[in-house]
Amino acid sequence: MAEAFLEAGMTAEEIVALCRQYTIYEWSAQGMVDPIPVVRAKGVYFWDARGRRYLDFNSQLMNVNIGHGDERVIRAIQEQAARLPYVNPFMATEPRARLGRMLAEIAPGDLKKVFFTLGGADANENAIKIARLYTGRHKIIARYRSYHGATAGAITLTGDPRRWPAEPGIPGVIHVMDPYRYRCRWCMREERCTLDCLNHVEDVIQFEGPHTIAAVFIETVTGTNGIIIPPDGYLEGLRMLCDRYGILLICDEVMSGFGRTGEWFAVNHWKVVPDLMTVAKGLTSGYLPLGAVLISERIAEFFRDRPFPGGLTYNSHPLCLAAAIATLQVYQEDRLIENARRMGEILARELARLKERHPSVGDVRSIGLFGVVELVKNRETREPLVPFNAQPREMGIMNRLKEFFLQNGLYTFIRWNTFFTNPPLCIREEELMEGLEIIDRGLEITDDAVA
Amino acid sequence: MAEAFLEAGMTAEEIVALCRQYTIYEWSAQGMVDPIPVVRAKGVYFWDARGRRYLDFNSQLMNVNIGHGDERVIRAIQEQAARLPYVNPFMATEPRARLGRMLAEIAPGDLKKVFFTLGGADANENAIKIARLYTGRHKIIARYRSYHGATAGAITLTGDPRRWPAEPGIPGVIHVMDPYRYRCRWCMREERCTLDCLNHVEDVIQFEGPHTIAAVFIETVTGTNGIIIPPDGYLEGLRMLCDRYGILLICDEVMSGFGRTGEWFAVNHWKVVPDLMTVAKGLTSGYLPLGAVLISERIAEFFRDRPFPGGLTYNSHPLCLAAAIATLQVYQEDRLIENARRMGEILARELARLKERHPSVGDVRSIGLFGVVELVKNRETREPLVPFNAQPREMGIMNRLKEFFLQNGLYTFIRWNTFFTNPPLCIREEELMEGLEIIDRGLEITDDAVA
Repeated sequence: MAEAFLEAGMTAEEIVALCRQYTIYEWSAQGMVDPIPVVRAKGVYFWDARGRRYLDFNSQLMNVNIGHGDERVIRAIQEQAARLPYVNPFMATEPRARLGRMLAEIAPGDLKKVFFTLGGADANENAIKIARLYTGRHKIIARYRSYHGATAGAITLTGDPRRWPAEPGIPGVIHVMDPYRYRCRWCMREERCTLDCLNHVEDVIQFEGPHTIAAVFIETVTGTNGIIIPPDGYLEGLRMLCDRYGILLICDEVMSGFGRTGEWFAVNHWKVVPDLMTVAKGLTSGYLPLGAVLISERIAEFFRDRPFPGGLTYNSHPLCLAAAIATLQVYQEDRLIENARRMGEILARELARLKERHPSVGDVRSIGLFGVVELVKNRETREPLVPFNAQPREMGIMNRLKEFFLQNGLYTFIRWNTFFTNPPLCIREEELMEGLEIIDRGLEITDDAVA
Repeated sequence: MAEAFLEAGMTAEEIVALCRQYTIYEWSAQGMVDPIPVVRAKGVYFWDARGRRYLDFNSQLMNVNIGHGDERVIRAIQEQAARLPYVNPFMATEPRARLGRMLAEIAPGDLKKVFFTLGGADANENAIKIARLYTGRHKIIARYRSYHGATAGAITLTGDPRRWPAEPGIPGVIHVMDPYRYRCRWCMREERCTLDCLNHVEDVIQFEGPHTIAAVFIETVTGTNGIIIPPDGYLEGLRMLCDRYGILLICDEVMSGFGRTGEWFAVNHWKVVPDLMTVAKGLTSGYLPLGAVLISERIAEFFRDRPFPGGLTYNSHPLCLAAAIATLQVYQEDRLIENARRMGEILARELARLKERHPSVGDVRSIGLFGVVELVKNRETREPLVPFNAQPREMGIMNRLKEFFLQNGLYTFIRWNTFFTNPPLCIREEELMEGLEIIDRGLEITDDAVA
C-alpha cells in the first residue's frame, strides 16, 4: 500500500480534495460527497490511500465479475495498447473478429450477431431503435422497478425515480408492474401469482394496441431495484405473449449477464431466448468500457439492405474489445460460472440464516452471486425500514449500517431499505463468509432500531 | 507489418470475413460493408493486413488528434492498467484528481468543473439534463446542420438525417438555420448576413417563448455537416441573446476541441465562454473512450445541495482518465496546437489553390486542421455534385473518388458531396502536401464528371 501511495504521489486528502474541487460526482449532491480514495485493487479486495482494505461485496457496480487486478486482462490490455489501441468502427480488426465469434458461441439461441457499444445505456438505446425499425411500431413496454441506463432513451425505459429529473423522455414507453412477490398488491395466491402478473401485461398490451408495441423490455433479473427473480413460468409466459402479438422480447442482461446468476446469462435458467439481449459490465469486468447488443439472425437480416441506425466514435474500440476477450477467457479458465453457482448456494443458505436471526430482515433474495437483503420496520406489515425513494435526511439508520460496514472493511451498495451481496465471482468460501459475518454483526444495528 | 500480421495470426480475409459474419457495422447496410482490416498505426499513417499504408486524412473520425501509436500514451495506459484500471465513479482516484485539475487549467472562462462521461453523446445527454434542471425550462434550440451523437437525447438535438430513424425523440427540441453562407437562402448581403442569422434565432426564441427555452445548443464549428465556421460576431451575438433571455449557451466541442481548429477550443477564436461545453474525441485522441461536460462554477453550485442527475458504470474510468492525462501532455510537449495553426495556414492556402484549379470544387472551408472540400455540378448554381442525403445508389461519382484516394494511399471521410481534410495535428508539411497532392489528382475525376 505504502508503495502504491508513494508512487501515486498524492495523499488521500489531496486526492479527495482535488476530486471534489474539480469534478462532479455522479447522482450526488456535491456538498455531501465523501469518496473513498482508492489506489489499489486485487481479487475481491481494494485498498484506499490510507492503507485500509475493503472486501468488495458489490463488485464495484455489480460489474467486476472476474475480480480486481487480473494479470491476464492487464497483460491483454498492455499488448493491444502497444499493437493497435484504436481505429474507427468502420474498420475490421482482429479483436472485433475474435470477440464477435466468442460471443456468438456463448450467446443463447440464435443471438449470433453482435453490435458493440460503449456501455449498457447505449446498448439499450440501440435496442430501442432496432426494435422500432424492425417492427415498424413505436411503443415499448418496460417495468417500474427497473433501471436501464441514464441516456434519454434508456432513462425513459427506466421505471425507478432516476427517471424523474430526465422527464419528459422519449414518447411511447409504458411501465407495467413487476413480478415482485414480496410487495405485490394483487394476490397472495402463490399458485396463480405468475399467471396474474402475465395477464396484467397482456391487459396493457390490449389497451395500448398490440400493433403499436415494438417490444417488451425487461431486466431478466432486476438489479438495483431489488434482485427481483422472475418466478418459473414468467419469462416463458412473456416470450409466449410477445410471439402471440409480434412483439420483440428484449432482455437487459447488463447486470445479470456473464455469470452473475450462476449461468452465462440469466435467461439460460429458464431456457428463454429473447430477440435482442443487451450486455455490458461483466463483459469486460470494468477493466475497460464496453457494451453490446446481441441480435438474432432474423433481425440482423433486416439490416442487410437497410442502414443500421447507430454508431459512436468509440464503438467496437479495439482496446476495449481486447479487454473483453481476455475477460471471457478468465471466466472459462477459472470456471467462474461454476464457482458463482457453488458460492451462490452458500450465499443463499447464509442469507436465509440472516433472515432467521435478524428481525429487521424482511426478505432475502439471491440467484448465483446476485443477492439482496431487504430491511423492514415490521415483518408482518412489511413496512420498509426507510421509505421508497428515501431522501438523504431519511437514510439515518441505513447510513449507520453503511458506516459500520466500511469501518469493518466491507464495501457494498446500499439503496433505500436494501443492501446488496454481489461479490466478484472469483470469491472463495472463506472470503464470502468473512463478508457475511460483518453483515451479521451490522444487522444488530438495524435490529435495535426495530426493537 | 509482416510481424504484426503474423503475431495477430489472422489473414486480412479472415479478419474481414469474421467481422462481417459476427458483427454489425455502424450506420451501414450490412450487405454493402467492405471494411479495411487494420493491423497497425503510427503517426499520421495506418496499415492494413495486406501491408498497404494509408495516410489518415481524417484522424479516423476527427479524433486521433495527437496521431497514432504515441508511445507516451501507450505507456501511460500500460502503467495505469497495472496500477488500478477501474473503480466505480463514486470513488476518488488520482487520475480523476489530476485530469480534473488539468482541464480546469485549459478550459475557457469559469468552466472549472468537469463531469466525465463515456464519450461525446452522453456528454451531450448530460448537458441537456443539466440545462433543463438549472433553468427549470425544457425546450432546446439546436441547428439543422448538426450532429450531436446517437443516443436518444443527442440524436434529437442532431439536425441531420441520422436523426430520422430515431424519431420521435425527446420533446422540446427546435431546429434553426445555420450560419452557412455558401448555401444561405436568405441573404447574400455579406454586411448584414450575421445579423440576419442572429435575428432569425431571436425570432424563434420569441415565437417559442423565451421562458420555455433552457439552452441554445450548437457545435461551435459544425463538423460532419460541413465545417461551418461561424462568421465573426455570430458566437458573440448568440452569447448576447442567451444572456438577454436567461438561456444557457452550450457548445459541443467534441470535434472542434483539443487543438483541431488551432486553439485549445474553437470558442477561444471568438473569446466566447459558453455555460456548458461538451468534449470527447481529441481528449484522449481515441486511445480510450472518454468524454466530459465542462461546467461553469455557477451551474456546478446549483448541484451542491441537489443531486446531480446522471452517471454510468464507466464514468470517470481511471484507465480512460489516465489516457487523457497523457494525451494532454503530448499536446503540450509537442506544441501541437501551434502546429495545427501553422499547418492550418498551409492547408487553407492549398485548399484555395485546389478551388482555383478544379471546376468541381464549389467551396473550401477550413480553420486550423479542420477542413472540407465541397463539390458541385455547377459553380454558378452551386448545385451539389450529389444531392443532400445522397443514397448509396446516388454516390457513384463520390465512390469513384473515394476508391481513387484509397488506391493512392489516402484515407478520408466522404459524405454526400463533401470530403474532409482533418489529419492528426502532429502532421508535418511534407505529409500534408503528400495528401493534398493525391487529392489534387483525384479531383480530376470529379472535374471530368462536371465537364
